[in-house]
Amino acid sequence: MALIVQKYGGSSMADAERIRNVARRVTKARQTGNRVVVVVSAMGGTTDELIRLAHEICEQPESRELDVLLSTGEVVSSTLLAMALRSLGHKAISLSGAQAGIQTDATHSRARIRNVDPKRICEELDRDNIVIVAGFQGITDELDITTLGRGGSDTTAVAVAASLGAERCEIYTDVQGVYSADPRLVPEACQLEEIGYEEMLELATYGAKVMHPRAVELGELYNIPILVASSFSDRPGTTIRGGISMEVRNKVRTIVHDLDVAKITIVGVPDQPGIASAIFQPLAKASISVDTIVQNASIDNITDLTFTVAESDLTRAMSLVEPVAQSIGARECVSDANLGKISIIGTGMQNTPGFAARMFQALYEAGINIQLITTSEIRITCIIEETRIKDAVRALHKAFELDKGKR
Amino acid sequence: MALIVQKYGGSSMADAERIRNVARRVTKARQTGNRVVVVVSAMGGTTDELIRLAHEICEQPESRELDVLLSTGEVVSSTLLAMALRSLGHKAISLSGAQAGIQTDATHSRARIRNVDPKRICEELDRDNIVIVAGFQGITDELDITTLGRGGSDTTAVAVAASLGAERCEIYTDVQGVYSADPRLVPEACQLEEIGYEEMLELATYGAKVMHPRAVELGELYNIPILVASSFSDRPGTTIRGGISMEVRNKVRTIVHDLDVAKITIVGVPDQPGIASAIFQPLAKASISVDTIVQNASIDNITDLTFTVAESDLTRAMSLVEPVAQSIGARECVSDANLGKISIIGTGMQNTPGFAARMFQALYEAGINIQLITTSEIRITCIIEETRIKDAVRALHKAFELDKGKR
Repeated sequence: MALIVQKYGGSSMADAERIRNVARRVTKARQTGNRVVVVVSAMGGTTDELIRLAHEICEQPESRELDVLLSTGEVVSSTLLAMALRSLGHKAISLSGAQAGIQTDATHSRARIRNVDPKRICEELDRDNIVIVAGFQGITDELDITTLGRGGSDTTAVAVAASLGAERCEIYTDVQGVYSADPRLVPEACQLEEIGYEEMLELATYGAKVMHPRAVELGELYNIPILVASSFSDRPGTTIRGGISMEVRNKVRTIVHDLDVAKITIVGVPDQPGIASAIFQPLAKASISVDTIVQNASIDNITDLTFTVAESDLTRAMSLVEPVAQSIGARECVSDANLGKISIIGTGMQNTPGFAARMFQALYEAGINIQLITTSEIRITCIIEETRIKDAVRALHKAFELDKGKR
Repeated sequence: MALIVQKYGGSSMADAERIRNVARRVTKARQTGNRVVVVVSAMGGTTDELIRLAHEICEQPESRELDVLLSTGEVVSSTLLAMALRSLGHKAISLSGAQAGIQTDATHSRARIRNVDPKRICEELDRDNIVIVAGFQGITDELDITTLGRGGSDTTAVAVAASLGAERCEIYTDVQGVYSADPRLVPEACQLEEIGYEEMLELATYGAKVMHPRAVELGELYNIPILVASSFSDRPGTTIRGGISMEVRNKVRTIVHDLDVAKITIVGVPDQPGIASAIFQPLAKASISVDTIVQNASIDNITDLTFTVAESDLTRAMSLVEPVAQSIGARECVSDANLGKISIIGTGMQNTPGFAARMFQALYEAGINIQLITTSEIRITCIIEETRIKDAVRALHKAFELDKGKR
């Protein structure tokens, strides 16, 4: 009898009717002979409502208390799903993160899972229960409740699957799966049947909102196949797994883009040790994520340093960077909020020449100017004007022949 | 340094503004040099909302899951109060019932507290924290969450106070304290400064909604003085405690009434062993609380059996009692929903003659017919027509000279 872990997100659990729908889907998995563990997010909107409540009480809610508060959202949805399953005649039980043995460090609001002790889950499975686990939360050695931050419930699901040696982890969400490009921009975009962990990691990091990179990383680490599919349809979805066949290697698999990009350039930076650290330390302390960093070769010991941040962080980032720039004797700081990021992703790219050239050529032919370029082993990213992103995605989708269904 | 336990009910915690108000009150207790543990109910309305949600999912939610669901209400309010206290500059921490060591049996939805292990509470007090405990909930040996049923948070507060050897337990609610009669019916009613546990128990059981009898019983068992006062004013409240002075003994202290009364009479019951059991067993199984039971002396081995139930239980009770009445050969079943209960309460009543006579005389003078009478050592109760309750309360308040402030 196979063991599978399913995860349902907030929009799949938004109200009683949808929860009953999820119960029917879980039932189907159970009836095909599987043992089933279900990880749930809070009902859509609940977490925001709880945060609003906390901010009504005080401006800066303390993170331990906020974690306890937010954790109730997933407890509520887990009990409701258990009730719905029972009313369909199934044995089901809900467990909080603590009861499910999700042990974390004590970093409130973005705790990391240290270990999953699946004892209670196993006991309940042995009692023939469908086990519903409240996602997004865990417990410290001190028995204090933590939350896992962004992508938390996905991470819970993959961690539970790993600890149980599950056959696979199924992430049900409001998208159909992973596409060769955003289907809203490219109608010809194809859904991928499968994708490797590394590719999915780049995809998740470089703009696709399908899944959080943390959960993908964990899946790779424990080699758990992850199915991403819609909870609103019966279409097949995309499987993320290792050992993708040779045929699909060495080619571009997806185009991914991100509009939430702003650029800061510090002009005329003296090229000496410690400068980068002086600039980026304050940003890290303020939890501002710095993405692409480019430093030009210096001329006369003077260089320019450019990096990107999320558009929403730009004002804060500038207020931190400007005094530093002044103190290290840089000439000036300039910023541009109207940028976007476009990436091509595919394993083996580094080993196969010509991908970058083809990308640049396609953008050139579309009349799109490239401002910054970064690469990884399986990804090439260009920063361009935000207004040209749509054209760029279409041009690259065509150039790499992704709309022909050759996956 | 004294240790006190405070409890705030749902109406005191209804929104952010009221929670901040509670925080200020707690602060005052802290600043006068006390160590403070606060037990909270869910924000007013939350529990009903969660029950509604459960019933949207299924008609008969399973009680284990319902308990987990409902327990989130008190967790939410406890974290919000902790945040409010921290924003006032105090050290504060919220604990769930489980974290606070509230150990119960496994009777979901009306669990009984078996033991309180105050280890974590003590540790947090030693760290100079104000400790906020989520009321109404506990945890079984299996680490499953339970709720305590009606009066649960009051019971949590007194149990925690007992386990910590607190100096007193303060129950803050939306009433000022205990009165000689309901001040809405009797404007001259006086607030009592103090009252004995036994009197309070009768009061709570016979209609006063101030506090649940369970919590009073627990206070008596561990001899914890309980202050009942309003969270919306600074008026002194009423203290429930043992060893009330001689002076206030041997007199009527309060008049208490209850409009939620219905009567069932089984007419022409053969007077033989096992009859009462046959009638009351099915009611007990259906969790219908039977209050006053009166059986007349039998004539020719035929008697009438009368008992009262809550008005809301009448239809269900009749449907259970009628077939039994038929099967034991009783003549008929009649019911009356329009009744009320009025009681006079005071310790030492049994030892002092004349109380009953004075009560009956006063009701007679007001032209009120008495349908049933029951007594305890410290209480005399009459069942009368619901429409005459107001007159009866006033007549008795006057007859026993309670409006003269002689407490």
